[in-house]
Amino acid sequence: MVAMEAVAAVMRWRLLLVLSAAGLGALGVPQPPNILLLLMDDMGWGDLGVYGEPSRETPNLDRMAAEGMLFPNFYTANPLCSPSRAALLTGRLPIRNGFYTTNGQARNAYTPQEVVGGIPDTELLLPELLKKAGYVSKIVGKWHLGHRPQFHPLRHGFDEWFGSPNCHFGPYDNRARPNIPVYRDWEMVGRFYEEFPIDLKTGEANLTQIYLQEALDFIKRQQAAQRPFFLYWAIDATHAPVYASKPFLGTSQRGRYGDAVREIDDSVGKILSLLQDLKITKDTFVFFTSDNGAALISAPKQGGSNGPFLCGKQTTFEGGMREPAIVWWPGHIAAGQVSHQLGNVMDLFTTSLSLAGLELPSDRMIDGLDLLPSMLQGQLVDRPIFYYRGNTLMAVTLGQYKAHFWTWTNSWEEFRQGIDFCPGQNVSGVTTHTQEEHTKLPLVFHLGRDPGERYPLSFASIEYLDVLRRITPVVQQHQEALVPGQPQLNVCNQAVMNWTPPGCEKLGKCLTPPESVPEKCSWPH
Amino acid sequence: MVAMEAVAAVMRWRLLLVLSAAGLGALGVPQPPNILLLLMDDMGWGDLGVYGEPSRETPNLDRMAAEGMLFPNFYTANPLCSPSRAALLTGRLPIRNGFYTTNGQARNAYTPQEVVGGIPDTELLLPELLKKAGYVSKIVGKWHLGHRPQFHPLRHGFDEWFGSPNCHFGPYDNRARPNIPVYRDWEMVGRFYEEFPIDLKTGEANLTQIYLQEALDFIKRQQAAQRPFFLYWAIDATHAPVYASKPFLGTSQRGRYGDAVREIDDSVGKILSLLQDLKITKDTFVFFTSDNGAALISAPKQGGSNGPFLCGKQTTFEGGMREPAIVWWPGHIAAGQVSHQLGNVMDLFTTSLSLAGLELPSDRMIDGLDLLPSMLQGQLVDRPIFYYRGNTLMAVTLGQYKAHFWTWTNSWEEFRQGIDFCPGQNVSGVTTHTQEEHTKLPLVFHLGRDPGERYPLSFASIEYLDVLRRITPVVQQHQEALVPGQPQLNVCNQAVMNWTPPGCEKLGKCLTPPESVPEKCSWPH
Repeated sequence: MVAMEAVAAVMRWRLLLVLSAAGLGALGVPQPPNILLLLMDDMGWGDLGVYGEPSRETPNLDRMAAEGMLFPNFYTANPLCSPSRAALLTGRLPIRNGFYTTNGQARNAYTPQEVVGGIPDTELLLPELLKKAGYVSKIVGKWHLGHRPQFHPLRHGFDEWFGSPNCHFGPYDNRARPNIPVYRDWEMVGRFYEEFPIDLKTGEANLTQIYLQEALDFIKRQQAAQRPFFLYWAIDATHAPVYASKPFLGTSQRGRYGDAVREIDDSVGKILSLLQDLKITKDTFVFFTSDNGAALISAPKQGGSNGPFLCGKQTTFEGGMREPAIVWWPGHIAAGQVSHQLGNVMDLFTTSLSLAGLELPSDRMIDGLDLLPSMLQGQLVDRPIFYYRGNTLMAVTLGQYKAHFWTWTNSWEEFRQGIDFCPGQNVSGVTTHTQEEHTKLPLVFHLGRDPGERYPLSFASIEYLDVLRRITPVVQQHQEALVPGQPQLNVCNQAVMNWTPPGCEKLGKCLTPPESVPEKCSWPH
Repeated sequence: MVAMEAVAAVMRWRLLLVLSAAGLGALGVPQPPNILLLLMDDMGWGDLGVYGEPSRETPNLDRMAAEGMLFPNFYTANPLCSPSRAALLTGRLPIRNGFYTTNGQARNAYTPQEVVGGIPDTELLLPELLKKAGYVSKIVGKWHLGHRPQFHPLRHGFDEWFGSPNCHFGPYDNRARPNIPVYRDWEMVGRFYEEFPIDLKTGEANLTQIYLQEALDFIKRQQAAQRPFFLYWAIDATHAPVYASKPFLGTSQRGRYGDAVREIDDSVGKILSLLQDLKITKDTFVFFTSDNGAALISAPKQGGSNGPFLCGKQTTFEGGMREPAIVWWPGHIAAGQVSHQLGNVMDLFTTSLSLAGLELPSDRMIDGLDLLPSMLQGQLVDRPIFYYRGNTLMAVTLGQYKAHFWTWTNSWEEFRQGIDFCPGQNVSGVTTHTQEEHTKLPLVFHLGRDPGERYPLSFASIEYLDVLRRITPVVQQHQEALVPGQPQLNVCNQAVMNWTPPGCEKLGKCLTPPESVPEKCSWPH
């Protein structure tokens, strides 16, 4: 962290220059740039044309990359939605911010409706911190950091919300489980499959269009008010059940999943166009990425592509954790660049604070790196990427090398039931169905030569020994300094589900909760 | 073929317009465009940045694509070098031009030194035909259409040659097998590992630089002479043993294979720059592709990447036969386009004739399609892609659908010895180690939704029945009209190897051939 702090100091100085070149606020003082995070749901590294998707149906995102900078080595902090999102908004690994379970070793956990936990009040979220620099913040789409009142996004720094607290699974009969509510700010305005229909048969839903309008309206309002904004556009059309609006249905060569991608691509194009029309491209930092790898269990009709990488969502192989990532900030970040910096969704926290001219919180460990030196000066900072499942450090990447301390895809029991996180892929001793411990002799891959993690280095090679010599102290230091947060995803209770979200009375949409029975959550993966 | 002929007629008319806009020849008459085919050896679809290779080390090829047109759905005619190259230069499937074996069902065959056969005199090669339009033709690099005197490239239409008749395998002790000769035109000028060293330990060889100079010199000479040229740049640095020259060794994130790719990328950049310096970009049609998929058996150190596709070289899965393909013709083909036309290396034959304003041979079946309508007007023509191994039609693609009539990777016997054409990949019933016949009920994949061939369509689905209804007559028609050529790759003989290539006396490099013993070639794959 010492090196990072030094970089941060340089950056704050440099930022003054940036700010002086940027727009002036309502009071005529320099204003920090707007921050626009476009976060996809289960979209894979290989889903964009610029990342090699053969149908090449993302002209707007490809153009965004051509006009901006592409990060081929960008990661999530966990191969599952909730912990990934909690990491992005706190700049901290899920093991620190509480988005993990201790119910089973190496188990991924998230926030379905029955989870009792959520984002602790002790965590500082990006929008809370950005307030100090005058930002207005909005989340559009999926929150996923807990749905009970104390976890509400407007209690954690966001000023506006349009979207849902949980995934849009369905349909439910509202008896065993309520349909997920859709909120506008503090109150629900309806539920999925009711006021906000998703036709599971045809895949038709208008949600991406609604989310697009929410984004466009917010940007226009903040621009008119001359206030810097943070927009967290966390849409979910590529999470199963995937959906698209009528004009996009059936238009993709890739089927329904591709229809969803095409609508998102079109929407991103419209958002960037608005920034151009408003002449605020120089004042708006835009970053596109995804929360975890493509859900191959839902492929091919409801899941995407992880390109050449191994396995997908839920796993700590590259397919589970490497993400598409593009930054676009014309006038600041030169067009058509590729950065090989190892990046992480947690860096969006740190980078955003840097953009806003704010200090990092000094009372806690922050895992995110400020990416501005990479983006603006092409710097490459040596930093590890940690791959966790729940409370278990599965793997670490340093430079080009990845060491697996544990390997696991899913249990034999599940695998025999047809659940396969690595369909069509099978690397002996690597894509294991028992939890294999390699801590004594980690499996090491060179991700440059072997991005698909197929050929572990020979244990006897000098290269292997060199890698271990460099990786071991990094892991040791990490584990020695680690103070795990209170695990939030251990306890479930049917009674905490979205039976009576705020505003349900006005709409006559309140449901009757069952008796409160807290129990240990079951996390099979 | 009727539809194709109609298109060809339109094209000849359109070509007049193109020609009138193109350069004037020495006599002041309009001159057809130069044709430059850059053919890679074992380079995979996924090896270029523009096709999603994560290290993104091909800035020149990526720029070529940005300034030209990319074909994501471009194929070879066979997943092995010799038949692929014979198909490219004849516009005909190997089953027609003789580049196949009947020694074993579904066996790939090629032209190692001991092969007795080669390109039959009855075949018409592209440079032979281009002569009629005044072209001067040169092959730089690997010929692979037979190494005995009657198969020499200068006997089949090329005016110049610098390169080798066979692969640069080695090293040999010149007793059991001679080292492969390197020719300048009619005579050898040395041998690999002797006058043309390839250091197998360090990977150093200067060959790509030599091949680059050959290309640049030829282009300059033809431009000075104001003669249209056909340059077939068939280099082989990405075929195992891969090599690069000193300035490129160790510069890639991908190891030695990446070093070779980087040197090739740099060379392509220099070739395109020369065209720009000579101001002949508008007069020079440039096409980049590869002969077959990446050789995954040589990966990760000596083999490339097939991106998201299944298996590699030797197989009739997408990884074996889908190729990187870029066309670049500034002023004619608009920049930054993607064509989803199903293309094939055989189309380069037909398209080149079209560019030269020449008729297709009318006395034989030509499989190549004229791609100019796709390139110039964005047309999409419905056409099948046939996937052969030897004499067996393994699969066919029509539109988005691929039907496998036979599946096979390699034999159990070989597989148990560690030979694996699909390392890390295993699709049950698809990546088979026995030859599986599916002719009664083909395995069908939707390549848009499922480019990795992991999810066969359900036999009971309407979609499956629809596909079969469309594909069956196409295959029937193909098979009924098929007149196989005389198989060239059945007979081997140690005595025909490169013991005494022409010119060996002058150099004192003649070797003593063994007794002539013709035998049946063994083709294990």
